[in-house]
Amino acid sequence: MSDALGKPGEFPFTRGVQREMYRSRLWTMRQYAGFGTAEESNRRYRYLLSQGTTGLSVAFDLPTQMGMDSDHPMAAGEVGRVGVAISSLADMEVLFRGIPLQQVSTSMTINSTAAILLAYYALVARMQGAGWSRLSGTIQNDILKEYIARGTYIFPLRPAMRIITDIFAWAGREMPEWNTISISGYHIREAGSTAVQELAFTFANAIAYIEAAVQAGLAVDSFAPRLSFFFNAHSDFLEEIAKFRAARRIYANLMRDRFGAKDKRSMMLRFHVQTAGSTLTAQQPDVNIVRTAIQAMAAVLGGAQSLHTNSRDEALSLPTEDSARIALRTQQIIACETGVVNTPDPAGGSGAIEALTDSIEQGVLRYLRQIDELGGTLKAIETGYIQNEIQNSAYAWQRAVETGERIVVGVNRFRQEERAIPTFRLDPELERLQVEKLRQVRASRSAASVAEKLDALEQTARGEANLMPAIVDAAAAYATVGEISGRLRGVFGEYREG
Amino acid sequence: MSDALGKPGEFPFTRGVQREMYRSRLWTMRQYAGFGTAEESNRRYRYLLSQGTTGLSVAFDLPTQMGMDSDHPMAAGEVGRVGVAISSLADMEVLFRGIPLQQVSTSMTINSTAAILLAYYALVARMQGAGWSRLSGTIQNDILKEYIARGTYIFPLRPAMRIITDIFAWAGREMPEWNTISISGYHIREAGSTAVQELAFTFANAIAYIEAAVQAGLAVDSFAPRLSFFFNAHSDFLEEIAKFRAARRIYANLMRDRFGAKDKRSMMLRFHVQTAGSTLTAQQPDVNIVRTAIQAMAAVLGGAQSLHTNSRDEALSLPTEDSARIALRTQQIIACETGVVNTPDPAGGSGAIEALTDSIEQGVLRYLRQIDELGGTLKAIETGYIQNEIQNSAYAWQRAVETGERIVVGVNRFRQEERAIPTFRLDPELERLQVEKLRQVRASRSAASVAEKLDALEQTARGEANLMPAIVDAAAAYATVGEISGRLRGVFGEYREG
Repeated sequence: MSDALGKPGEFPFTRGVQREMYRSRLWTMRQYAGFGTAEESNRRYRYLLSQGTTGLSVAFDLPTQMGMDSDHPMAAGEVGRVGVAISSLADMEVLFRGIPLQQVSTSMTINSTAAILLAYYALVARMQGAGWSRLSGTIQNDILKEYIARGTYIFPLRPAMRIITDIFAWAGREMPEWNTISISGYHIREAGSTAVQELAFTFANAIAYIEAAVQAGLAVDSFAPRLSFFFNAHSDFLEEIAKFRAARRIYANLMRDRFGAKDKRSMMLRFHVQTAGSTLTAQQPDVNIVRTAIQAMAAVLGGAQSLHTNSRDEALSLPTEDSARIALRTQQIIACETGVVNTPDPAGGSGAIEALTDSIEQGVLRYLRQIDELGGTLKAIETGYIQNEIQNSAYAWQRAVETGERIVVGVNRFRQEERAIPTFRLDPELERLQVEKLRQVRASRSAASVAEKLDALEQTARGEANLMPAIVDAAAAYATVGEISGRLRGVFGEYREG
Repeated sequence: MSDALGKPGEFPFTRGVQREMYRSRLWTMRQYAGFGTAEESNRRYRYLLSQGTTGLSVAFDLPTQMGMDSDHPMAAGEVGRVGVAISSLADMEVLFRGIPLQQVSTSMTINSTAAILLAYYALVARMQGAGWSRLSGTIQNDILKEYIARGTYIFPLRPAMRIITDIFAWAGREMPEWNTISISGYHIREAGSTAVQELAFTFANAIAYIEAAVQAGLAVDSFAPRLSFFFNAHSDFLEEIAKFRAARRIYANLMRDRFGAKDKRSMMLRFHVQTAGSTLTAQQPDVNIVRTAIQAMAAVLGGAQSLHTNSRDEALSLPTEDSARIALRTQQIIACETGVVNTPDPAGGSGAIEALTDSIEQGVLRYLRQIDELGGTLKAIETGYIQNEIQNSAYAWQRAVETGERIVVGVNRFRQEERAIPTFRLDPELERLQVEKLRQVRASRSAASVAEKLDALEQTARGEANLMPAIVDAAAAYATVGEISGRLRGVFGEYREG
């Protein structure tokens, strides 16, 4: 195999960020989960840990993601639906009850309100007696892809970027092992992008975050080692393996050449992968086990650091316990039975894989040049350029499925009569319980202290100091997600699309 | 990638037997099935064809495989149990009712009685008006691995070899598109061999068949293009991909150099693959979908011509219709959704894969030299050398599972409380129906004609002429599997182990 490739663990890391890869340390098996109240989700996390999951991944409900409390009028019907409802530190305490945060690595899919949930997490850790310096995990905290593809934004772009760089700076000091962002191509791909676009727009966002942090006065090597990434493992097996390899090489060169990083860890692309939810079908749900297994294999052959495998029933509902377990077993089979963990970058040197890696790299670099010419990522988002590119790809895919040029087993071929399978049903009573619990929190805390801390936060937001200490103080006083977000909304305003 | 490798479609075919591989023609999706009576199995075949299977694969019950009729006292309890019960041409007519044999390719897992079942098949085709010259399919007809690993032998080795070379000669003239043997490593692997042993002992058997045919006066290029192979797709993903590639290279060199083949088709290793039944667990049967998917992917990346994917419940029972369908969908997902069919030998050139390919090749060649030194394959079987080598490997594997050095998900790790799943249940009434049907066949045929044809067969067996025409004549007179085998037993005797 070509010497230009380098070896695993060596710049530009095409073949992996560690020399031994999974021979010395497996990826983290991190199953995304969360629904209903903190009690319900805590039970599911403990189940997953008992079944061998090696990291937690918290799904929050939409109100929590949008900075609304569970008793907000617009939250009705959404409380606990796509994730767990967390309105205050009290919920977070329950969410991690009996789970020692010093020992588990936790990922939280939270963006606009990432600072608040990170504060809650840090406070729960402190209550458990866990030092912040050893906490490990990730907050998604990737607001740009929310404007591009996912939609849970609150503030306009520039104050949103300030919150993110404040987190970089604060967590860099307080929680040095914590990944302060998970820059996410996953949702870009789910929105219908190609593999090249997934990488290109993710790295365009990364460039924007890094530039903002540098402008805010941070040295690149002070925060870049804690940047992490999140990609999709889609259906095209060879292309996906190549995509992960190309991503590492592009990023290493970008960090060294564009940002002048000197620390090797700043150049190492570390990423979580989730198999492609959008490829799962409501038809013949058991067949989704096959899709997920092959996508997961691509992620592992591609050198992921962390992996979520989707459950067979995710096109129908939240996963049942059975389905979530089969998804986890999929990772365990790959790790324990297939032997692929014994060879770093086993695809490396394959003519087909190397050619794909090169061509994906070229395609991504073309897009990055194009975005630079348009005036940078924020401009490319504000003008809708990135969104349009994705929509065009999504449309082309959809057309190919409609014409039958692209086959989707069970959808446009190999159909059959469908039988209902047992799906997960959320107890509608949970919403009422959650709202009741929130009322109790409000009743039992010191209203004066909450008001004082929120006022202090508002003052900080109007100035230029780091927001995080004020958010932590308010969170510790049991100020809610809605209250903290509300004060920031008052200062920063809200983003309006178009 | 190395030039020494050659290209797909070029000698020594490491990278595949066709230049375009699946770009020009997919593998045959051939799901092994058969149980109960011919009616039941016919219904399952029609179901599988309606779901998109592209080839049939017939499982016969043990009495049929052992040359016993369904009303034989020793057949009781075994009729239709592990495959379909076929006692005479009448059963075979029902088995393929409504299935045009000129359009479908059929594989039959039949060894000691392969000549009889092939005769039945040819006669059914003739009744349908299908010319023999265009019939496509395979009989397993690999008796040597029965002595080694599988157990359904009847005759001593040397007359058994005569039947096989008679089939080569007869079918070479009468059914030129038919694969006259499927030399099978599958069962050797299932018995616990390593990947190297699987290839080595399969090729040792191939050498014995080819030598026997050459000794019987056949020119190598007259029969070798119709030799086919059958391998296992086991759990070790990279090793299995490499194994298939090594197999092609070993065989091409063997045929050219040892047997002086001149026809390129004689050097092309074409093989069917079945995923490894022995890796499936009775525990957590849904997880077997994952094992099978990954094994099937290895077979496709390895360039198989035909593939059977096991059903999730095969460690518990015969597959239910649902499970058989998911297994077939597994192949359809790989073929239609993962894109791997667009690149011949995508792993080719990978340092890891090429190194494994080379080391498997070396290991196999070492074994072949060893067997030559022992006096050849028949000797190595008669002395138990091959069987011992396999047993040692099987023992080592079992020990590794017992000590936990080798993890089997759900067995020695990640266990859980098991719940019963709906499994296939064979109607016990079917055995009675089958015996009754056989009585009717015996009553309605011409006893004199049967006796005459059987006498003629016996005469042929005592001489040296090709057995096949006499078997076809007897079969056409509705002589049963037991009657035809009985006459041959009388002449050839029976094999006794050890």
